[in-house]
Amino acid sequence: VSRRGMQTVTLIPGDGIGPEISAAVIKIFEAAKVPVKWEERNVTAIKGPGGRWMIPPDAKESMDRSKIGLKGPLKTPIAAGHPSMNLLLRKTFDLYANVRPCISIEGYKTPYTDVDLVTIRENTEGEYSGIEHVIVDGVVQSIKLITEKASKRIAEYAFEYARNNQRNSVTAVHKANIMRMSDGLFLRKCREVAENFKDIKFTEMYLDTVCLNMVQDPTQFDVLVMPNLYGDILSDLCAGLIGGLGVTPSGNIGANGVAIFESVHGTAPDIAGLDLANPTALLLSAVMMLRHMGLHPHADKIQTACFDTIRDKKFLTKDLGGNAKCSEFKIAVLMTWTAGS
Amino acid sequence: VSRRGMQTVTLIPGDGIGPEISAAVIKIFEAAKVPVKWEERNVTAIKGPGGRWMIPPDAKESMDRSKIGLKGPLKTPIAAGHPSMNLLLRKTFDLYANVRPCISIEGYKTPYTDVDLVTIRENTEGEYSGIEHVIVDGVVQSIKLITEKASKRIAEYAFEYARNNQRNSVTAVHKANIMRMSDGLFLRKCREVAENFKDIKFTEMYLDTVCLNMVQDPTQFDVLVMPNLYGDILSDLCAGLIGGLGVTPSGNIGANGVAIFESVHGTAPDIAGLDLANPTALLLSAVMMLRHMGLHPHADKIQTACFDTIRDKKFLTKDLGGNAKCSEFKIAVLMTWTAGS
Ligand SMILES: CC(C)[C@H](C(=O)O)[C@@H](O)C(=O)O
Ligand SMILES: CC(C)[C@H](C(=O)O)[C@@H](O)C(=O)O
Repeated sequence: VSRRGMQTVTLIPGDGIGPEISAAVIKIFEAAKVPVKWEERNVTAIKGPGGRWMIPPDAKESMDRSKIGLKGPLKTPIAAGHPSMNLLLRKTFDLYANVRPCISIEGYKTPYTDVDLVTIRENTEGEYSGIEHVIVDGVVQSIKLITEKASKRIAEYAFEYARNNQRNSVTAVHKANIMRMSDGLFLRKCREVAENFKDIKFTEMYLDTVCLNMVQDPTQFDVLVMPNLYGDILSDLCAGLIGGLGVTPSGNIGANGVAIFESVHGTAPDIAGLDLANPTALLLSAVMMLRHMGLHPHADKIQTACFDTIRDKKFLTKDLGGNAKCSEFKIAVLMTWTAGS
Repeated sequence: VSRRGMQTVTLIPGDGIGPEISAAVIKIFEAAKVPVKWEERNVTAIKGPGGRWMIPPDAKESMDRSKIGLKGPLKTPIAAGHPSMNLLLRKTFDLYANVRPCISIEGYKTPYTDVDLVTIRENTEGEYSGIEHVIVDGVVQSIKLITEKASKRIAEYAFEYARNNQRNSVTAVHKANIMRMSDGLFLRKCREVAENFKDIKFTEMYLDTVCLNMVQDPTQFDVLVMPNLYGDILSDLCAGLIGGLGVTPSGNIGANGVAIFESVHGTAPDIAGLDLANPTALLLSAVMMLRHMGLHPHADKIQTACFDTIRDKKFLTKDLGGNAKCSEFKIAVLMTWTAGS
């Protein structure tokens, strides 16, 4: 990583439509003269020594060096006992914060306007601990694990995010009325951290109440922070409000600047290779990545072009109600610069 | 309970706005000549022998006898260690199925039309087991408990409900990709039960996907069945789609016909006693109760009157955008019969 020269980014194109949407992003980055050098890596889980699943060493090595990844969709292997690749990546690089800005897209109509919120999900523990037991025949327990350390870390991330992104409030989402000890601990840490961020308004709300209010008036929310499973749910719900996973960016943030940005939609095997996929989610994830890298002018330039293209409606992909191919959408994005200059 | 005579129903008016909305329901039942005799009971948790929280013996005794309850909102006590009264009631009477029909209300505009679905929530275990531990300082676990027995029971309830209510499909909502053993068990039981209901279409879907699809197009859903916490979330989300908790009925069903129907909104202490509350949720819950009791003509009569009044828009309470008092709404409901006859 050099200040003046090119920064290396590990590119994980992924499966299904992954390669074609990645190709579109690469072309747009080139045209926007983004000082980024891609290091492409294939990621399929392999069995390491002792039978533990791991990502291939060359992908791990690249990420360890570049610290920044951009990733398309990965197919979930069918083999029993095989972990989700997404989970494995979060774990391997301790990507503790999943950040998803949900902002209404001008020109793309949904029942909601002016949505402008960010879900921040604890990404490492909670209901995703993976610890489960059969107690007796027919009785199973899954363990939800909440730690002080991870709760504090995610709360701090949320408040810092709010402060750095000119946002006014953080809402902690919980069910501490039911899970008094675990969600109680999470909530206590949020309250404590809030004390150090007097410039940010802090509120707390039950998850069920958030869901109800969210579908009635999402504009009341700003930054939301929550344990793992609640974030899984709420981030998808919120994506639905603005148009779905095809237009929603996502970032997984770890310590020391390590981060992987990804589109969270599926691999869409039915249309893979047909040049029909919508590259928007991956492109906007790449824009998030540029901001994370401090490359704000490039981020602005690409984001504006992407939104202009959608607002213009002439080259929308099928999922957005148009007929354009992935490559045509990409060209339309590029054309906004030619037209504008 | 006698066939020809009056059936006894235990009425728990509840706190805050509970008494006034209960009074409206009583009046409407009277006017509709419903063969129901109310047995009013106050429910506040008391400490029984051995320090266990319990509901007052006279309320328990009434419910044991009548088997049917109608209940307004109960305030959640602030005292530490005090259980939620709603949870205590579910537990005391083993009300294992929470049933919430969510149907768009004609004349009350929300971003969604033609919503017509039912959430069926397992009401006794899962994330609500209440089992939590501190493992070491700063590390807490909550146990999610899933049993074969409860999963089978709720799955059977859902399919029978679908069959008895002319519904076409049941969707099992889960995260068995993450909680492979617990949600896996739940899902397996749903699949097994589905085998015995070939007339009902069975599908399974991840909770996050359901949330996303729900806000994009709720009309694709019919009956949904799910573990406790997922039901807590989804039932509130769905209520939000059609107008909120003020218009959504709810029933908690146990074995051998035991059931408590309730409005699931809060006690609204700010407007309690001011005759401003909306009795719709309690009234529609009472309609569900009548169907449960086999009193379909009375149920139809009251339901039609309630929906006519809302569609007419002249006597809407404040929460629905009108200026009518609770008692005026009630009178408007009664007037539909006078006008019609
Ligand atoms: C793929 C799946 C394991 C994952 C999750 O449940 O976290 C997905 O839903 C997500 O939100 O990234
Ligand atoms: C009051 C609370 C304990 C309850 C729950 O979490 O189940 C409520 O949200 C509900 O859905 O009835």
